[in-house]
Parts: sequence; structure tokens; C-alpha cells
Amino acid sequence: MKNGAYDDALDELALELVGMARWARAKGERIVVVFEGRDTAGKGGAIKAIHGRLDPRQCRIAALPKPSEDERTQWYFQRYTSHLPAAGEIVLFDRSWYNRAGVERVMGWASERQVAEFLRAAPIFEKMLVDDGIRLFKYWLSASQESQEERFRERLDDPLKRWKLSPTDVAARAKYADYTAAREAIFAATHTAWAPWTVVNFNDQKRGRLTLIRHLLDRLPDTHVEPEPIDWPDLGHDPLTEEFGVLSPIPDFPDGE
Amino acid sequence: MKNGAYDDALDELALELVGMARWARAKGERIVVVFEGRDTAGKGGAIKAIHGRLDPRQCRIAALPKPSEDERTQWYFQRYTSHLPAAGEIVLFDRSWYNRAGVERVMGWASERQVAEFLRAAPIFEKMLVDDGIRLFKYWLSASQESQEERFRERLDDPLKRWKLSPTDVAARAKYADYTAAREAIFAATHTAWAPWTVVNFNDQKRGRLTLIRHLLDRLPDTHVEPEPIDWPDLGHDPLTEEFGVLSPIPDFPDGE
Amino acid sequence: MKNGAYDDALDELALELVGMARWARAKGERIVVVFEGRDTAGKGGAIKAIHGRLDPRQCRIAALPKPSEDERTQWYFQRYTSHLPAAGEIVLFDRSWYNRAGVERVMGWASERQVAEFLRAAPIFEKMLVDDGIRLFKYWLSASQESQEERFRERLDDPLKRWKLSPTDVAARAKYADYTAAREAIFAATHTAWAPWTVVNFNDQKRGRLTLIRHLLDRLPDTHVEPEPIDWPDLGHDPLTEEFGVLSPIPDFPDGE
Amino acid sequence: MKNGAYDDALDELALELVGMARWARAKGERIVVVFEGRDTAGKGGAIKAIHGRLDPRQCRIAALPKPSEDERTQWYFQRYTSHLPAAGEIVLFDRSWYNRAGVERVMGWASERQVAEFLRAAPIFEKMLVDDGIRLFKYWLSASQESQEERFRERLDDPLKRWKLSPTDVAARAKYADYTAAREAIFAATHTAWAPWTVVNFNDQKRGRLTLIRHLLDRLPDTHVEPEPIDWPDLGHDPLTEEFGVLSPIPDFPDGE
Repeated sequence: MKNGAYDDALDELALELVGMARWARAKGERIVVVFEGRDTAGKGGAIKAIHGRLDPRQCRIAALPKPSEDERTQWYFQRYTSHLPAAGEIVLFDRSWYNRAGVERVMGWASERQVAEFLRAAPIFEKMLVDDGIRLFKYWLSASQESQEERFRERLDDPLKRWKLSPTDVAARAKYADYTAAREAIFAATHTAWAPWTVVNFNDQKRGRLTLIRHLLDRLPDTHVEPEPIDWPDLGHDPLTEEFGVLSPIPDFPDGE
Repeated sequence: MKNGAYDDALDELALELVGMARWARAKGERIVVVFEGRDTAGKGGAIKAIHGRLDPRQCRIAALPKPSEDERTQWYFQRYTSHLPAAGEIVLFDRSWYNRAGVERVMGWASERQVAEFLRAAPIFEKMLVDDGIRLFKYWLSASQESQEERFRERLDDPLKRWKLSPTDVAARAKYADYTAAREAIFAATHTAWAPWTVVNFNDQKRGRLTLIRHLLDRLPDTHVEPEPIDWPDLGHDPLTEEFGVLSPIPDFPDGE
Repeated sequence: MKNGAYDDALDELALELVGMARWARAKGERIVVVFEGRDTAGKGGAIKAIHGRLDPRQCRIAALPKPSEDERTQWYFQRYTSHLPAAGEIVLFDRSWYNRAGVERVMGWASERQVAEFLRAAPIFEKMLVDDGIRLFKYWLSASQESQEERFRERLDDPLKRWKLSPTDVAARAKYADYTAAREAIFAATHTAWAPWTVVNFNDQKRGRLTLIRHLLDRLPDTHVEPEPIDWPDLGHDPLTEEFGVLSPIPDFPDGE
Repeated sequence: MKNGAYDDALDELALELVGMARWARAKGERIVVVFEGRDTAGKGGAIKAIHGRLDPRQCRIAALPKPSEDERTQWYFQRYTSHLPAAGEIVLFDRSWYNRAGVERVMGWASERQVAEFLRAAPIFEKMLVDDGIRLFKYWLSASQESQEERFRERLDDPLKRWKLSPTDVAARAKYADYTAAREAIFAATHTAWAPWTVVNFNDQKRGRLTLIRHLLDRLPDTHVEPEPIDWPDLGHDPLTEEFGVLSPIPDFPDGE
């Protein structure tokens, strides 16, 4: 997708996202969006496209680090529950509890028994949240191995992106089909009426973001809430300038030569 | 500053930021950057320019909500200390403990006695962190009332930015000079050898970001650490495509008509 | 029950409690015990009888304060989940999620709809924990109004116990029958095969504690784990005495005159 | 000390402790009491003697587990600060930040450089808290090696106390003199005007507790606050009895035979 068309379309969607956030705050709505998918599919970029337009005090990203020793032995969902939203909040999960049946399964970090237990428990867990009034959306970002390879290559070659490449990524390349199988098992067990999955094609990441956001917005009820009017009187004097006593600004960054 | 020149300059700085992050991780360095300044000065944008290039699991933004009733009665610095970095982490404070002597003072939410106590305690608190090995940088983003008014106006008129406008902002307009006085008091009390302030002119926000990042990078020691080599074998087969059984991707977002 | 008989019986049970704790640590077991019941029934004393004999680093008491504004709007069980045990831990809940259908219902702090929703959700929530391997025990401490009045009276008259008397307690006196009805509704909805309730008569608090602990121990499997042998060599010299340079002990508390 | 005399004396002190707690709540006072001393000196028992008489929702025990990997690299005082009291709270530290210059030093878990840094920083840290209005009391519980050996022996022989014996305890026996030296270094560096140490002889643990509590109470200002009057009307009917429908109490614990 061309940059110009993307920017225009995103700006239009952003207006609706901002409206949704105003509505969530006004009505005390709680929104959870789960982003899953293969490495490089574009989870981070999609999350940023939403988060970047909203008040970071209202819209949080939950990207959990590896579980600690203690967390590993707790109720599996425990460390996720502490990130669930209060009234008016929107939480974007960059990966989620599905790790157990995704990366942990494929990499052999969880036993088949743990995976089976998770797949049994996840729909029940999610139903509890939904029954409590949380609006839960689950997106799976899909990418062919061709585009995955391309993006891995980019991370390898671009020093700005090199940090995105982890040993797990290297191992993931040989396991593309295993991930496909793991995803199918996830869908079979957890695509429920109360918390359905939506698959979005992210071979074109920009288009993928628009598709996802459009879909998310369409699944919400009418979110129109009039913004509070703001009274904005004249300053009543000429604008003031900065006056420094103790310290002064350092020299500006120079124009390039 | 023109977009093209800005993007190019930022890309060059980003390379160094990424290097800094690699160094921090390799050496277990802990970095804290405090962003203070008037509303609309551009704290959020400057933070994003840094954070957006780094691993969000390593570089965190600390933007604390209003203190709870309990927090209001605790040791003043307590709620900030829980956000301090562990080894390898970089924490960007979007506003900070200086709230007490800034917005709280100007708006009359803190007593003069509390402000005086804070100004006495802050350098001691900061010295403790620095003595513990934390690298602490404090930036003050400066903007004339003219550019502040312009940006307020933009927030008022642009529905995408309207949420950035708070009742405090409206009140802040009439208090430009009070903020100046508050800032001067902060500098007089807390511009120390171990935790000096740096003032950056943000009338041009893009240039301001470059100035700030350049300065930050220059204050660090040699951060060169060679990236780990990554072995990247051939796939050994044609790239695989996504195969869906249970669910299929939804239709792509259409090209604009 | 006489003090001597109680102490002897408790000492014997304590041996088994200590054994249970050793077993829990060795096997990574997670144990949750919920204590519910009327005010003054003796929840605190029963909890102390267990907790006082065990390692406080292993056995924790969870007595949550009133929910904060944010917590009030979160998933109802959220603030409880953060207290669930990791491997080897024992958590004693002094009141629990049942507040909603107990005190909150009787005092009118929760709507009938919220109560119904809770009674529907609680068994599901508890099944998730039990299926995850947590051992969950729920005790209801029962006391007649006669003994309740007696204990309220004691709290009113004994300055050492006065703090235990809250405005809610005063209100509770007139609602004895309402609490009975609330409890019956709780039992009807949440006495499940996986998380049954056990009612213990606490009109005699000491006997009640023994009854409860005996029952708890009987519901666990064989918990025998041999303690680790400890090598305890001779000191090899006369015991040393404290030698003070900078500071000396203050005078001892005198014998009564 | 004889049990009867101890109980009577403790009851009298408890009255004052309860008064102190009422005062702390009424005035928003924050109280921190640090308990340090050799293993077996009686920290746990002294803490229980205070905590057992007060509202556990107001008076908390802070007994921190070993630091996690992350905590080990954070600002040294960070994990302690999150346990500091809010208005009206009393926190009893069962060991404290002094671990670094005590057990960690003696056992060789901290470098001499870390110890020196701690001894330099601790008085500054404490001054910050005291200047903020926190009332900080530091007690060192002293015991001769003879009584230490006796108590170790008891822990070894009494199955109820066996869990109190850790590998560190075994190692500590050979290091009695090292602990003495470490304590002297702590006193030399951290016995300050704003946060003085008080040494209490705990060779007789019961007497030690009374000495400590008496001293603590004497260091507070007049704490007299009249308890709120409580209106206690007649029930207006005969006391009700428990009526069970769904479930009935289990049989009482039998009298010993």
C-alpha cells in the first residue's frame, strides 16, 4: 500500500479511534485487544498505530516479560489478570496468555499436558472476563513465510532493527509449519461465540493495520459521545517569551550541511 | 525544520540510540531520563522519538497517573521509586517527581511548605540514585507562549488532538509567568553537579528532539558494543504459505476510491 | 474448652501443620484456605492459630482492604488473584471474594444483580483454580447471636479489643437473619464438588479452631516428608558473649513491684 | 521471666500500644520499626507481641524474601520503599535494608565495596524518610552465644520449630564474632541523631520484648486520643440461633480422652 493512501486512511480511522476512547471513558467501558501471530507479522506496528493516537494514560500496552520463577508456578492466568483494564481503559496485549499454546508449545517449553490444560481453560477464563462486561477482541496476524523471511532479512541487515531479532526468531524459521499447526489447534479450541478470533492478512502490513482497526471499530456499538465543550478565552495580552535566569537553552541542533 | 532533513537526522541518531541500548544491556547500565517542561512543549513527542526505536521490553515510559489517596500520604518519592530501572533498562519519565514544584505549585495543589521540602529533598534523592550507579539525565523542554498558544489552538481545532487538552491546560494559559517562576526555583535548587538540568528549545519541536537526543548521546561514555553475530542458514526449501482450516482471514481493507 | 486441654490438642495438630507445610514446600503444593463467617465468629483467631506455627515466608494471610476506586471497576476477582499462592505457599484468606454475596449484599453495597452475577461466577472461578492444581478449602465459621453479642460486648468493654468494633459491626447486629439468608444463598450456589464448604461451629472458639484444623489436615493426602537432616557440629569453643563498643543495651524492663 | 508476670506486664503495655495505634490513625502518623539482630535473638516473637494486639489492616509486617534477579540490580533501597507506611500505618520490618551490612556481609554475599556504599547511603536514606515525617525506630536485639546455642538446640530438637533452622543458621554459628564486628560497623556508621539505634538485651526474650515495647512507647509524644463513642442499643429481641438449610456444621472436635 502506498504511504499517502495509508496515511489518509489511517487518519480517518484515527478519528474513530479517538471517538471510541472518549466513549470508553464516558461510559466506563473496558476494552481488551489481544494481538497474536507469527514473529514479524506486525503485532508491534499494529499496536503502535492504535496506541500512538490515544492518551497513553488511558490506553496501555501489555507486553509481558518472561515469567519469573514464582510466576511459573502460579495459576497460569495470574500474571495476565493484573493487566486487565479498569473502567474507561483500553489494554492492548502484545502477545498474551496464548503464548502457552503458541511459542511455548512450538519451542517445547510447555508440556503437551500443559497445552491441553490451557486450551481447555482459556475459553472459560475468557468467558469470565466477558461475562464481567469486558469487551474482548482477539486478532491473529497472518503472514506467509515469504514475507516473514523478507522481514527477518530486513532485521538482520538493518542495524536499526537488529535488536528485534532474537534466538527464538532464528529457531522459529524452521518451525513455520509447527506454528501453523499450533494456531489451528488454538482456533479449534478457543474460537468461541463470546471471544471469537479474527484473522487478518498482514503480508502487506499497512493494509493489515487498516483492516484490523476497521474491523475492531465495526464490532463496537455506536460510540458517539459529544466532546465536552471547552471555553477558550483570549489571552488578554501579548504572548510571553521564555526568560531564563539560572540556566539557558543549549544550542539548537544545526541544519545539516 | 523540514520533514526530510528531520527524518534523515533522526535516522542517524537512532543508530546511536540503538547502540546505546545494546551497550546498556551488555553492561547492565541503568538509565533514567526525566522530561519536564510546559504543557505542549513536546515531552510526549520527544519520548516517542526515542522509545519508538528501542525494544519496549528494555525501554519503558513512566507516565504516572494522579496519586491515589494512599500515595498522597506516603513518602513523596515512593511511587516514583517503583519505576526505577533494573540492570540494562532505560526509563523515560514523562513528567516526574518535579510535579510537586511545577504543576502542583502553580495550580496551588501543594503548599509552599511542601514545595520547599521537596526542593530541599530532591537533590538528596537524586544523589542517592546517582551514587547507586544510575545514570540520571534531566531535560527541560522550553517553549514560548506564542508556540504554546499555537499548539493549544491545534489541539482545540484538531479532533485527533482534542483529548490532549485538559482543564489544567486551560488554567495553565493564564499562568505562563508562574510556571516560569516555578521553573527558575527548581533550577536554583536542583541544578546540581550530580544531576544537572539541560534546557532545550522546543519552539521547533522536531529540531528540539534532535537537540535533546544528540545531547543525551554525547553525555554517555563510549557505548560501542559489537552486536552478537547471528547465524542465518538457508531455509532449505521454498517458503511456506499460510494454510487455514478453522478460520480464514477477513477481507483486506480496500484501496480508496 | 479448658486452656490446658486446648493447648495440648493444638500442639499435636501443630505438628501435623508443620508437616503439611514441609510437604507443600517439598512437592510444590499450593494451598488456599478461605475463612468466612459472621463478625466475631473467630476468623482472625483461627487464622492466627495456623499462621503462628508456620514460616511466615511460606504461609501468608490475605486480608484485603476496601477496594480502591479503580479496583471497584475491574474484573471482580482481579484483586484477589494477585494473592494466590506460588509453589509451596499457603495463603489464608481472612474474608475473600465472598464479600460480595455476604457483607456487601447485606449492607446494600452491591446490587442484587451484582450478587447474582457473583454467585454464578464464583464456582467457575474456583474451578479454574482447582483445575490448575490449587488446593482450595472453604470454611464457614458459625456462631449464634448469643455468642456474637457476648463477643461484641467484650469488644465494647475491653479497651484492648475496642478497635475490633467497627460501624459495620454495629449495623450487623440488626442484620443477623439477613446474614443467615445470605449465607444460605452462598451455600446453595457455591457448595460444589470441586470446592465444597465446611461449616464449623465456633460458639466455643477454641474448640472451633481444633475442629477446623483437624478437618483441614484430614482432607489432605499423606503429607509425610522426612525433614532434611541437619549436621550440627560442636562449636569447638566456649560460647562467646556480646561485646559492645559503640552502643550498649538499654536497662532491662524491671520486675514488677 | 515468669509467664504470669510477663502476661500482666504485656497486657498493660498492650493498652498503650492500642492507644498508639488509635493516635496514629487519628493523626495520620506513619511509624516504621526496624527489628535487627542475630538469628534466634527473638525478632519474630517481639514483632508478634506488637502485631498480635493491633489491627492487621493497620499494622503490617514486612519480611522480605530473597531479592529476585531484577531486584538485585535495582537501586538497593527500592524493594524496601514499597513497604513504607501510608498515613496511619505502622510497619514492622523483620530484618531490613541492614541485611546488606549484616548477613550479606558476614556470609560474603555482598562485596566490601557494596557494604561500604550501603553504610554511606543508609543514614541519608533514613534522613529522607524522617524529614518526610516518618517516625523511624531501629532496634537491635542482642543475645549471647550461650542463649543462641540453646535456642538453636531447641529448634533442632523440637519438631515444631525445626523449620526455623536454615542452612544459613548453621553457617552463622561459626560466625558469631563476625556478626559482632558487622554490627559494630553498622552502629558506627548509622547510629545517627535522626535515626538512632537502640540495643535491647534479649537473652531473656520475654523481658526483652517488654523492654523494647516500653522504650518504643516512651519515645512517642503524648498519644492520647479519646476513642470514638459507640452507640450500642439493645437488640430488642432474643438472640437468634444459627439455622442451617443447605449444609450443617461438622461434628465438634472431641474432648480428649
